Formats: sequence, C-alpha cells, structure tokens
Amino acid sequence: MINALLLSNSTLPGTEFFTWPRPYVKDFLGTKRLKLVFNPFAAVTLSYDGYEEKVKEVFEALGYEVNSLHRVEDKVGALAACDGIVTGGGNTFALLHYIYKFGLLEPLKKKIAAGTPYIGWSAGANLGCPTIMTTNDMPIVQPASMDALSLIPFQINPHYHELKFEGQGGETRKERLEEFIAFNPSRKVVGLPEGMLLQRSGNTLSIKGEAGRVAKLYVHGSEVLGLHAGQDLSYLLNA
Amino acid sequence: MINALLLSNSTLPGTEFFTWPRPYVKDFLGTKRLKLVFNPFAAVTLSYDGYEEKVKEVFEALGYEVNSLHRVEDKVGALAACDGIVTGGGNTFALLHYIYKFGLLEPLKKKIAAGTPYIGWSAGANLGCPTIMTTNDMPIVQPASMDALSLIPFQINPHYHELKFEGQGGETRKERLEEFIAFNPSRKVVGLPEGMLLQRSGNTLSIKGEAGRVAKLYVHGSEVLGLHAGQDLSYLLNA
Repeated sequence: MINALLLSNSTLPGTEFFTWPRPYVKDFLGTKRLKLVFNPFAAVTLSYDGYEEKVKEVFEALGYEVNSLHRVEDKVGALAACDGIVTGGGNTFALLHYIYKFGLLEPLKKKIAAGTPYIGWSAGANLGCPTIMTTNDMPIVQPASMDALSLIPFQINPHYHELKFEGQGGETRKERLEEFIAFNPSRKVVGLPEGMLLQRSGNTLSIKGEAGRVAKLYVHGSEVLGLHAGQDLSYLLNA
Repeated sequence: MINALLLSNSTLPGTEFFTWPRPYVKDFLGTKRLKLVFNPFAAVTLSYDGYEEKVKEVFEALGYEVNSLHRVEDKVGALAACDGIVTGGGNTFALLHYIYKFGLLEPLKKKIAAGTPYIGWSAGANLGCPTIMTTNDMPIVQPASMDALSLIPFQINPHYHELKFEGQGGETRKERLEEFIAFNPSRKVVGLPEGMLLQRSGNTLSIKGEAGRVAKLYVHGSEVLGLHAGQDLSYLLNA
C-alpha cells in the first residue's frame, strides 16, 4: 500500500517557498500531528541546516513535526520510527549518491511499502521513480546505481516545459525525453510541469495541480498525450 | 603529445550542418588526405547510418576519408590503424555507454596519447574531459563509469549559455556548474558557448571561435572569469 505525493517543484516563481503544494500536502497527510523525517541530501550549494529550516517552517505551520536526517546518527532507525518521509529537491545525483552511501534505499522502500506516506519534489520526485534517468540535473557525482525507489512503475520528468531558447542549439526537453524512450522503449515518462503533482494512494493514481497546466505522457511508438488535473491515471500503475 | 579539437557544437542555428567549424578543422588536421574514424555512438534518435552520411559529406569535402566505427567488427583494430578520430554529438551517456561496452576507452587514450588527432563536438567534447559530469544531457543509460578520455585535465560544459526561461524554475546553467564545483572543488570547468572551441596541441591550449562569444571559467572559490577567442590557456593544462 504505497502512498506517495510526487511534485514537479516546490515553488512557483514570485511566491514564497513551497506555497502552491500546501493544500495538497495537508490533504495527503491529514490532520494528525505526524512525525516527519526530512531528507535534505539533494542540497549542494544550500546548507543542510538552511534547507531544514525552510522546510521545518512550512511543515510545522501545516501541523507536523520535522526531523532532518542529516542530524541523525542512526538514519535507518529514524526512518523506521517516523510517520512520513519528505525528500526535498536539489541535485538528483547528489541525493541518490547519499541514499546509497548511507544505505537508505532498501529501508526507504520497505518503510514506504508498509504504508508510510512519502512526499518528494523535483529531485525528490525523481527519487520516487524506478530510476533517476529522467532528471534534468547535471551528473555532478556518480551514484552507486541510477536505480531509485520505484514507488511508481514509470518515470517523471519534473519542471517539464516545451520552451526553446532562440538562437541556441542543444536538445529541447521533448528531444531529451524522446531519446529516453527510444533507448528505454518499455519505460513510460510523465512530463510534469511546475505546479502539478502525481498522487498514488495504493492502486489509484491521480494528477492534480494548478489551473491551466497540462502534463505530457511519453510512450514509445505513441503520440505524446496531454494529462489534465483531476484525471484518473491508475492505468499507469499497471506498466 | 595530445592533439585535440574540442568544439561546443557542430552547427549554429540557421546554418548547414557543421559549417562554422570547417576552417578550424582544416587548420587542425592539415592538408594530407587522412583516414579518419568516426564514432557515431552518441546518436540515439538519428540512425548511425544517417549520422555517418552527414559527417562523411563534410569531412570528405574537406579532403579526408571517413570510416564509421558502427560498420566495423574490429573496432580496436580500426582505431589502431587510423590517422584521426572524430566523435559526434548526441547523448553523452549513450556515447560513453558504448565506449565501455565495446572496450574502446583505453585504446582511444593510447592512440591519442601517441599523437593521433582527436576532434569532438558536444558529447564528443565531453568525452575528451576527465569525466562526463558536466554534460547537459539526460542520463538515459548508466555507463560503466562516468570517467572519460582525460585529454585535458579540466571539464568542458558545451552549449554554454546564461539564459533563463521567464516564469520557469529549475536551475540555470550557472547554478548547475556552481553545484559541480561545490561538489568537486578541485575540478575546473570551461563553459564553452556555441561557436567556440578549445584546441590542445601538446603543451599549449588555445581558445578559438566566432566573433563576440565569451567562454566562462568556473573555479571553486574564485569569481567566474571570461575567456576570449585567441587567448592562451596553456596554464589550464597544469591543473
């Protein structure tokens, strides 16, 4: 019974940190004062302390306790004892590198499989996928593997957009994702624009988010398909 | 005695394939009818045959023979026998995956160390670096390692720019490179804009390219430094 809230991003331009996701998080976690563990290891140029402070402020205002893993000696024990897991964005390669370094992949999978809710944004959403192979981040470190938590059987591309810089070459996001499905034809990808999220509650999967946004589903050999807030995407769990 | 021409990109928007680099390539390879081996393995959505055809047309017009590695059973033998190596752009992870799969990393390093000229653009320039960790590409496959040819002792970020999409979050290129040097403080990075290249001839290193373009040098703990066409960058070889 996996419960996961996978968000494209934390913060829309021109708003305070983690504003748009708050009602979705409250709805997902409920009204009990849960003890959450925060995973700050995607932070590279921001300090773990600074990241914890920002996240704590938001989640405590929502009515939850937050304990950051970087302060804890017995990280596996802290995960086992918590009521929920929150993984912040940053660099996905750094995040996964530390997950392997601290031996947290299997403990996380086990804990989440037992029903403990998982929330992740950006790199934290990539961590929820079968692999981190659809991250947008620079591979600044080589993790032990690119295999991740597999909380869903398909890939997410966070911060998805279809923009192109005028007069500049290099691949567009669409071209990158087309390369991914050409190389990995059995793997689907949801391009999730900022302000949207996927919510898995056991065997149901839904897409939610701010008005006017459209996610895109990439499947090898098919036309790219638009996905709209409110749609039932449970069929994607049978991949 | 390493001779390498590492180009940011093949083609400026609005021009024919591989137009801007032609005079630099001719100057680098000289007037003899060299037998070049082409390495097409960065291509993912373009076929190797199609890629070979485009590259062959350009390099034959410049007066060289081109033989693509994807046609050759004995790839190590073909490398040993050639007069020069050309590695095309595409997906850097796919490229390096095949380099390891076919056992070509050490044969390439040995052949180039013996003086055989190497030309690479985009993913092919990333391949010339110590690692591929400053690629812009999506990690669509996990290579055996991120270690690459080390033809220079620092990293290149190809297609470098300082643009940002309005109303869109996610890291800028500058933020990505700052993450890289924060995580790898002993490693320098040259952000190489389209239309520029680095040329190593033994112990000298120069930067060349189209007018009005400025590369950027990222060094941990220092201000970002502008690099201009014509500058002697040989000091970067003592890293």
